[in-house]
Amino acid sequence: MNEFDLIEKYFNWKNEDLSLLGVGDDCALISIDSQYQIATSVDTLIEGVHFPKNTSASDIAHKALAVNLSDLAAMGATPQYFTLALTLPEFDKNWLNDFSSSLKALADLHHVALVGGDTTKGMLSITINVTGIVDKGEALLRSSAQAGDTIFVSNALGDAGLAWQQIQQNIRPSESLLKSFNTPDPQIKLGHALLGVANACIDISDGLEQDLGHILKQSNLGARINLANIPLSDEVQAYIQESQDWCLVLAGGDDYQLCFTVAQNKIKQVEQLSQDLNVKLTPIGTITKEMGLERLGGFEKKCMSYRHF
Amino acid sequence: MNEFDLIEKYFNWKNEDLSLLGVGDDCALISIDSQYQIATSVDTLIEGVHFPKNTSASDIAHKALAVNLSDLAAMGATPQYFTLALTLPEFDKNWLNDFSSSLKALADLHHVALVGGDTTKGMLSITINVTGIVDKGEALLRSSAQAGDTIFVSNALGDAGLAWQQIQQNIRPSESLLKSFNTPDPQIKLGHALLGVANACIDISDGLEQDLGHILKQSNLGARINLANIPLSDEVQAYIQESQDWCLVLAGGDDYQLCFTVAQNKIKQVEQLSQDLNVKLTPIGTITKEMGLERLGGFEKKCMSYRHF
Repeated sequence: MNEFDLIEKYFNWKNEDLSLLGVGDDCALISIDSQYQIATSVDTLIEGVHFPKNTSASDIAHKALAVNLSDLAAMGATPQYFTLALTLPEFDKNWLNDFSSSLKALADLHHVALVGGDTTKGMLSITINVTGIVDKGEALLRSSAQAGDTIFVSNALGDAGLAWQQIQQNIRPSESLLKSFNTPDPQIKLGHALLGVANACIDISDGLEQDLGHILKQSNLGARINLANIPLSDEVQAYIQESQDWCLVLAGGDDYQLCFTVAQNKIKQVEQLSQDLNVKLTPIGTITKEMGLERLGGFEKKCMSYRHF
Repeated sequence: MNEFDLIEKYFNWKNEDLSLLGVGDDCALISIDSQYQIATSVDTLIEGVHFPKNTSASDIAHKALAVNLSDLAAMGATPQYFTLALTLPEFDKNWLNDFSSSLKALADLHHVALVGGDTTKGMLSITINVTGIVDKGEALLRSSAQAGDTIFVSNALGDAGLAWQQIQQNIRPSESLLKSFNTPDPQIKLGHALLGVANACIDISDGLEQDLGHILKQSNLGARINLANIPLSDEVQAYIQESQDWCLVLAGGDDYQLCFTVAQNKIKQVEQLSQDLNVKLTPIGTITKEMGLERLGGFEKKCMSYRHF
């Protein structure tokens, strides 16, 4: 946790007027009508902080919307609409065309509508606020893991982290790694399919250990994970074999995969929806009554939280 | 209209998935349940662009929320919740305490809950996305003025513009002018009371002529206004008498008063709610079939759109 995480405490007001899930989950949930809850999430991406200076307009747009959609995915919410606050240093038609086309492509893919915005002049910065709906009381929370649950993650971890490490070392990452870093694929369908199946869920944006840690803290439980079971791409596998640097996988950011916990009697359903959605879902450990996060696999170094730039 | 207004055309997509009022009004309206529409609006305030560098944290917080609430007021929507994306150059406890206290005070006043946020490091910038609800089909739009309507404005115009002009000239404005400039009072109660009374409504953020112009353009109508009828504070009155600079009032920004149009058979209701709410509501002109905005009062200069900084 750094100073800017601490800042949140300044805004951790009690909200008595609305029946809602407040600060501390991926999205705020607001009860307005009787059937749905509204899920809303906001994220700012700043040049030089959240993406390198030479990132294309197309990739910036994709990532800005994707990281917000990923928060909806983690709640099992269905995206509805978003607003865009765009701060630009100059008026550049080509940049805007690229940005807009890419944003629209991802928005169309997830049937989410741009409903409002504001444009200002200044250092390049993009704030998107995305809103979705979920059946009342059904949202996937961080706080409802149960002892004995199996912990799953989607797809593979560490690709974006490796891409970023290579960029810092002036090595051009492979297309596959760059794709994970620049144009993450928010797991909206998976999140929706996990409603009624998973007990707890979070998206992995700050690294597996930190994000799983949120589930453990809010559920008042611990976990045991087995490093050997964490799904890795061939490139990350090779990097780990050479460097033994598991922190890239455990504390690397920008994965935007889902980490979720499932009771034993629903494991078969997870296997089925892995097939149905054609998405790899890998058991990596177990939720335990004993507090703390235990690693199996012989890597004991404490990983520092991964932060860009 | 400047380059940054033109940018909006890059994002003027057609939204087919949602039944909504798209780009071009104060808020986006989204139909999710059967009774309400959700009204949502986003605005970014940047240091050195939307407020001077020496503005207090308290004033910045107030203004950032107030300008967004003002958009809800203009629709007649009841505020529900907002998100905050805050970009800060450094971690400053005192600044954050002042910012948070002021934001909370205005939020509590309007029963609007902070439900989510993001904090990042960079040049000082505040993006607030506020959401309200309004009974379906009842929202006050820009597009529904009728020929023969009387045009009203709330309170007085030009105070914030005069404050800003004096600040630029290194004159310290009076407390009253500074209050209008730094801590505008969003007309939420008035907006709500105008539901079913006004035909069209907008908040005056970019100057009376430009904002009334939006009503005229979207309603396909014209207007005749009488300068002598525009409500002014004593200070602005004195400034105009000396300088004859009506542009301060016609094109000055940051008023955050409501401009609305009312059919003749409802004028009495406006007079009544002016008394009930203790807010000054002044008729300044008439909506006409003839296109264009005609000024009575002998001031013919074309005013340039007022822009900060």
